[in-house]
Amino acid sequence: MPDRLLVVGGDAAGMSAASQARRRRSVDQLEIIAFERGNHTSYSACGIPYLVGGLVGELDDLVVRTPEVFRDRFDIDARTGHEVVAIDPDERAVTVRRLDNDSEYRETYDHLVIATGAEPVRPSLPGIDARGIHGVQTLDDAVKVERSLSEGARRAVIVGGGYIGLEMAEAFLLRGLEVTLVEQAPQPMVTLDPEMGALVADALRQMGVKLHLNIAVSGFEEAGGRVSSVVTEEGDIPADVVVLGTGTRPAAGLARESGIPVGETGGIRTDARMRTEIEGVWAAGDCVETFHRISRRAVAIALGTHANKQGRVAGINLGGGYATFPGVVGTAVSKICSVEVARTGLNEGQAEAAGLRFESVVVESTTRAGYYPGAKKMTMKLLAEVGTGRLLGAQIVGEEGAAKRIDVFATALWNEMTVEEIQEMDLSYAPPFSPVWDPVLIAARKAAELNAPARPDDV
Amino acid sequence: MPDRLLVVGGDAAGMSAASQARRRRSVDQLEIIAFERGNHTSYSACGIPYLVGGLVGELDDLVVRTPEVFRDRFDIDARTGHEVVAIDPDERAVTVRRLDNDSEYRETYDHLVIATGAEPVRPSLPGIDARGIHGVQTLDDAVKVERSLSEGARRAVIVGGGYIGLEMAEAFLLRGLEVTLVEQAPQPMVTLDPEMGALVADALRQMGVKLHLNIAVSGFEEAGGRVSSVVTEEGDIPADVVVLGTGTRPAAGLARESGIPVGETGGIRTDARMRTEIEGVWAAGDCVETFHRISRRAVAIALGTHANKQGRVAGINLGGGYATFPGVVGTAVSKICSVEVARTGLNEGQAEAAGLRFESVVVESTTRAGYYPGAKKMTMKLLAEVGTGRLLGAQIVGEEGAAKRIDVFATALWNEMTVEEIQEMDLSYAPPFSPVWDPVLIAARKAAELNAPARPDDV
Repeated sequence: MPDRLLVVGGDAAGMSAASQARRRRSVDQLEIIAFERGNHTSYSACGIPYLVGGLVGELDDLVVRTPEVFRDRFDIDARTGHEVVAIDPDERAVTVRRLDNDSEYRETYDHLVIATGAEPVRPSLPGIDARGIHGVQTLDDAVKVERSLSEGARRAVIVGGGYIGLEMAEAFLLRGLEVTLVEQAPQPMVTLDPEMGALVADALRQMGVKLHLNIAVSGFEEAGGRVSSVVTEEGDIPADVVVLGTGTRPAAGLARESGIPVGETGGIRTDARMRTEIEGVWAAGDCVETFHRISRRAVAIALGTHANKQGRVAGINLGGGYATFPGVVGTAVSKICSVEVARTGLNEGQAEAAGLRFESVVVESTTRAGYYPGAKKMTMKLLAEVGTGRLLGAQIVGEEGAAKRIDVFATALWNEMTVEEIQEMDLSYAPPFSPVWDPVLIAARKAAELNAPARPDDV
Repeated sequence: MPDRLLVVGGDAAGMSAASQARRRRSVDQLEIIAFERGNHTSYSACGIPYLVGGLVGELDDLVVRTPEVFRDRFDIDARTGHEVVAIDPDERAVTVRRLDNDSEYRETYDHLVIATGAEPVRPSLPGIDARGIHGVQTLDDAVKVERSLSEGARRAVIVGGGYIGLEMAEAFLLRGLEVTLVEQAPQPMVTLDPEMGALVADALRQMGVKLHLNIAVSGFEEAGGRVSSVVTEEGDIPADVVVLGTGTRPAAGLARESGIPVGETGGIRTDARMRTEIEGVWAAGDCVETFHRISRRAVAIALGTHANKQGRVAGINLGGGYATFPGVVGTAVSKICSVEVARTGLNEGQAEAAGLRFESVVVESTTRAGYYPGAKKMTMKLLAEVGTGRLLGAQIVGEEGAAKRIDVFATALWNEMTVEEIQEMDLSYAPPFSPVWDPVLIAARKAAELNAPARPDDV
């Protein structure tokens, strides 16, 4: 009799775990069943804005592997339209509901991987369930947004200016809609510090997005069976389609109800091998919390890369191998029309919360040599620890060629480099790629100068 | 009486040293004179191909600071058309020749910075001094190439397929010339391993460059007072203009003749503070040798970034501060039409020469998510040390968005990371910027898999 692995959630983390386990355990050794309540497995949710915006032609382009591929090529039984509604860790069994006929059945397991992902935060506001108000979390959401557009929506309102919200703003602009962003904070992209967020706000305005900052949404009005406006303390904003970019939280309800420990972040707690505190139960992806290597605290960050890596680690381990997930440094990147935004490490608020003393510099530079055609403006902000000069975080707002430089800072953070060390590095230079001092080096140098102890000759 | 600093060579290294020294020592404390035999100070030689190609409008666009700016804003007396022809370290004096009237004079110094740069290797072949055969080293060379073009050159031959040679090939293509490349090695870009060089060769052919690989040039023929063809062992190649991309060597003749020690690489020897072995004499830029952090050997690498940094270090130190140049990892990047090429660390030949045992992987990926518009092919090669898994080198050939990723590897090399560590890093992901596994991570993972010790369960 082979062991049996059950996977709850058929997207990045779950299916990575399943695939890795299969690589190490043949079908004679391990039976694998994955349950997915939606209609798709293993897809790029990050691609949804580009699908809606028309940059990606087909929904199928976002699907990495279909259930058929998993079955035929990997001997993994991926069951869409199946929702796991209960876990019984003592009996090592789950209860599964078939969404097509609402019937339920039990399956037992030797190993269980919980990969239930994240769920959009849906503020409990009057009218929020009106037609035309969408989260953007699953491919099924994409289909619903598309339906709103095909029904003739002209005015889009984005509630919440995080990555997904702004990427959807781009999508609607590309589709020719009027786009309004309502954000409770004084700036979009609250994971950036205010002066960097202000650059994003300026860019959004230039693209034609109407910004309502510092304004809370109090509800939604309906007309003719669908949303007609977003109600705010400063008046109503007409809307034919609304996207909730109000963030996500780990979808850890099932785990919590089943007695699987969940941390203060709301994410399932695991060790570095992705084991929960319950024997035989693993967890991976947006539903878990992980270790932030700079703040040294638990964080819950919903991101496909982490989900893929964590799923892979879980799959290797439960397949009998050894792997660990070493935590994150909080790297993120996004593009909204011509503006690129990236960050890694801690911003000012996060550094304060972690009890770190820091200094910061903001440096303007260009993506290429100033004289080279297509050189674009970019602004970088660095945070460095007072005294040690250790890099704590970096933020970039710029145009084409700016944002991917964040990976150098992410690598520097990973290695706990000081800004003094960073400024010395041998980074690539040629006029089509950077000024002779790459902006990364300039920013590090400015930060190092701030941090340098006064020397006798400087007095 | 202020001290006196003399600087030999008025480009990146020399003028960085002068500027940094001035920041720390006022004109009352330090008199600064810089001698430059050419007509320009502080310019971007790397920009010459783009000037010739018409991407940069004006020669002046490549000049960072003119002698007037140095005089008026920095109190630095920058004398163009002045060549230092002898150094007398015992007397702390130099002999200067005025090139306008061939007169000579002496200046004494307290500090001397030698920043004589690199000189193109000019093979001693019959006919090499014909009109229309150019090195590409100084802005004055750019003027001469431009003159050849304005005289109606239609057929360009590049001798030597290094960075400068290929960038000039692009320039001539942009100007509508027929372009032929003659390279003695079996591939262009010999700093890449053969399979990566082959990708560059393919790309060059697709651009319309005629490649003659594995062929030595034996001379040049003249007609009507200028070059008419390049003579090779396999026949003559008609040429109206020829560019020598046959590499450079440190211009260390003046130092050597003056008794200032020069290393086996041909570069002036300095310590990390950029002091030569002679009291009061500093050196910086393309004329020095430096420490390669991976091979642990001395190397001479001509590159504007190193020149700027070394000049800055020399200037800080001789101004009374403290700074060191920590060496290089051999990072370089170039773009030829749509092809981006980058490398860092050691290639196979260099790793062998350094006595290192290595394994390598070659990985194909894309610059963006496969479904995102504008995703381009990129190929990465990694070398990792057998046993330890330490990264030894990386090479990238791809299209837009590929090459700057080399900086992540350069940062990883700087920190002596293993490929196993690299694959775990938190690099940025969004569909316009990378697949969900960034190619850097994929390549590191493949290399880590090669390097992983066999585990019982893998057997």
